[in-house]
Amino acid sequence: MADTPEKAGRYAYDGLDRVLHEKARLGVLTALVARPGGVAFTELTRLCGLTDGNLSRHLDVLAEAGLVEVRKGYDRRRPQTTCVLTSAGRKRFREYLGELEQVLRDAAVAEEAIGERRPGLAGA
Amino acid sequence: MADTPEKAGRYAYDGLDRVLHEKARLGVLTALVARPGGVAFTELTRLCGLTDGNLSRHLDVLAEAGLVEVRKGYDRRRPQTTCVLTSAGRKRFREYLGELEQVLRDAAVAEEAIGERRPGLAGA
Repeated sequence: MADTPEKAGRYAYDGLDRVLHEKARLGVLTALVARPGGVAFTELTRLCGLTDGNLSRHLDVLAEAGLVEVRKGYDRRRPQTTCVLTSAGRKRFREYLGELEQVLRDAAVAEEAIGERRPGLAGA
Repeated sequence: MADTPEKAGRYAYDGLDRVLHEKARLGVLTALVARPGGVAFTELTRLCGLTDGNLSRHLDVLAEAGLVEVRKGYDRRRPQTTCVLTSAGRKRFREYLGELEQVLRDAAVAEEAIGERRPGLAGA
């Protein structure tokens, strides 16, 4: 029930940067994080369930923020666009994930407090 | 490196419903989840770091979706607005949190795969 006063902004979650938090971009970043060599544009549309236009738009936002790099190259003479997470992007994404973990911890603690424990993250 | 082909839409995260995923609304829901009796409007602005206008706007979206209920009442003769998570809201929020856990697991597995393990959620 949390009757003790909580800090102002306790649930503001300022670390949930909108550039990374937007659902489609969150998917793109998660798809890229395991692949230091990058992912081909076409493969990325498939993995993220996005149209070419949508993916382009989201990549523009991510590239503008310095989180991804879009490289034009060739794969067996066919032009290929590859999307790569930058090292700044990896760092920012990691910070963002830390804030996301905080949300899950807060929610788990809250549910415990009212006696409806969800299995999982409370102890994380 | 994940060289095996992954499923189409693997990173689409369709469960990240925009009504709940939006950063301010995520804060509001997390603030409400521990308080079955609800939270006074003014206290909620303070906890979430939102202006009255912003909170109203987000409550409208959440109420429209049936996730919260906004109750007009009195506290010692002074009018008071109280915000309460509905039981449907609690259920939907729980499902949303499950998807969020999936994102964190995917990211943790990815970082493990490239040998830069973050402490925490990989085993969750």
